[in-house]
Amino acid sequence: MSLVVVGSVAYDGVETPHGKVDRMLGGAATYIALAAAYFTEVKLVGIVGEDFAQEDVDLLASRQIDLAGLDRVPGKTFFWAGVYSHDMNERTTLQTDLNVFAGFDPKLPDAYRSASYLLLGNIQPALQKSVRSQMNGVKFVGGDTMNYWIKDYRGELLETLKEWDFLLINDSEARMLSGEHNLRRAAARIMEMGPRTLVVKRGEFGAILFTPEFHFMAPGYLLEDVFDPTGAGDSFAGGFIGYLAGRAAGSIDLEALRRAVIYGSVMGSFCCEKFGVDRFRTLTHEEIEARYQEFKTCTSF
Amino acid sequence: MSLVVVGSVAYDGVETPHGKVDRMLGGAATYIALAAAYFTEVKLVGIVGEDFAQEDVDLLASRQIDLAGLDRVPGKTFFWAGVYSHDMNERTTLQTDLNVFAGFDPKLPDAYRSASYLLLGNIQPALQKSVRSQMNGVKFVGGDTMNYWIKDYRGELLETLKEWDFLLINDSEARMLSGEHNLRRAAARIMEMGPRTLVVKRGEFGAILFTPEFHFMAPGYLLEDVFDPTGAGDSFAGGFIGYLAGRAAGSIDLEALRRAVIYGSVMGSFCCEKFGVDRFRTLTHEEIEARYQEFKTCTSF
Repeated sequence: MSLVVVGSVAYDGVETPHGKVDRMLGGAATYIALAAAYFTEVKLVGIVGEDFAQEDVDLLASRQIDLAGLDRVPGKTFFWAGVYSHDMNERTTLQTDLNVFAGFDPKLPDAYRSASYLLLGNIQPALQKSVRSQMNGVKFVGGDTMNYWIKDYRGELLETLKEWDFLLINDSEARMLSGEHNLRRAAARIMEMGPRTLVVKRGEFGAILFTPEFHFMAPGYLLEDVFDPTGAGDSFAGGFIGYLAGRAAGSIDLEALRRAVIYGSVMGSFCCEKFGVDRFRTLTHEEIEARYQEFKTCTSF
Repeated sequence: MSLVVVGSVAYDGVETPHGKVDRMLGGAATYIALAAAYFTEVKLVGIVGEDFAQEDVDLLASRQIDLAGLDRVPGKTFFWAGVYSHDMNERTTLQTDLNVFAGFDPKLPDAYRSASYLLLGNIQPALQKSVRSQMNGVKFVGGDTMNYWIKDYRGELLETLKEWDFLLINDSEARMLSGEHNLRRAAARIMEMGPRTLVVKRGEFGAILFTPEFHFMAPGYLLEDVFDPTGAGDSFAGGFIGYLAGRAAGSIDLEALRRAVIYGSVMGSFCCEKFGVDRFRTLTHEEIEARYQEFKTCTSF
């Protein structure tokens, strides 16, 4: 079934202990779409400026990602630059130029409105809500948010979450949103806000899926080299929702959700192996399946 | 098969956000022995002072723990006091009185020397080596160490590790010992030092078992309330080695090692549910098996 992905399409400048790239394709929606496209048909909604390169359009199009919803407007594409600490557990933002992204007010093309799955990347909660309302009969909707919206747009965010089926956030965001330090209690609080499926991402320590019925814990894949963690969380989201919309053929039962978390972890782990989206230029379905099996071997007893 | 456990037997003063206890039974060997005794026959080696209470002797004896190797000498028992941070991720030591533990020079009773399993708690590496040499035909030997020995007694520690089959340490110790930040590479280095089985404990994030052939990742159990994390790592060690020596009936194949890590996690998680060793006063075999099954449910896909 088809999946609508909404969020930032950007250029990033990234420095890690393994090197430095001044400008490369980035943005949450880009990572989500590229990861999800391995599993299902993706329709992208975003905004870019006149500087958005044809080769980047070509990469997305080569994955059969529908770009009817990618607005190109006068001005420059969103640019972000950051540097990672030596152990890559901390990231410092050096530059954020919203550029055309400041005026992002997503309007879905008609052909998008009947999609069954909707993933809302980390944008202003009111915009996420507006996109949700443009969909007809969506089956499974949710997305991401961040500390800024949780703190300063709490009311708006809570209104938005009421209509979501799932939420994917990291552990510190889960604690901030719920006001609970303990993750199990934090999850219980958040599930009362709307989303009955919650995925708490814990970076190198993996992810936990919570539903009112059970929880499921996936370890983080042990990489020998993390080249660039940028986009890993978004690639996780893409693998998670892409698997559900595509390979799981519309099933969102507990078994499908477990497998979706593992596919999310698989895609997040591959993302870190090269700079930016580079790993997705060469990643094959066979590699994805092999790593999925590796997760099974590393966790079953 | 029987297991010899060597290490500190102490009194602890502990303050956590859930309360404060001025003086209670503690020490690495105490936790290890109490946890392991659920699975196998334990022979304890330690030293206590004249103040060591009969009720604490009785608790250990009630678990059929052999106390022939528990020396009682003039003076006071080792005392440690510490306070945990609000999120319990940090611990500050307030007081360390080694007392009689300063003169600890373990001599194994004759009846201990033919045991098949030996777990050396965190004591000076030369003492660990001396105990190892007192054993005849031990089958599986290993233990714990800490940053102090890794930094200031490195040569001595490396000599000791050469004769070990397994090592249980936490992630920061693994990084310090190997000089590698990446855990996969850190593990490879450490396995070259002697122990072919390495368990890296990651606190609330679980544990990873490494052997030259494979690795296995166990999540941390999601507790709703962590009352007191003191002794959790030692209880993990006790569950791990106790299962191997007892329930696994001498098998140390890859399947047994995986299950041992889960039993370690089970025992570590129970330890945190009450202050000090209190949870082990009431813990039943049925509760242990139920939590083991819960680990399966939370991780299988």
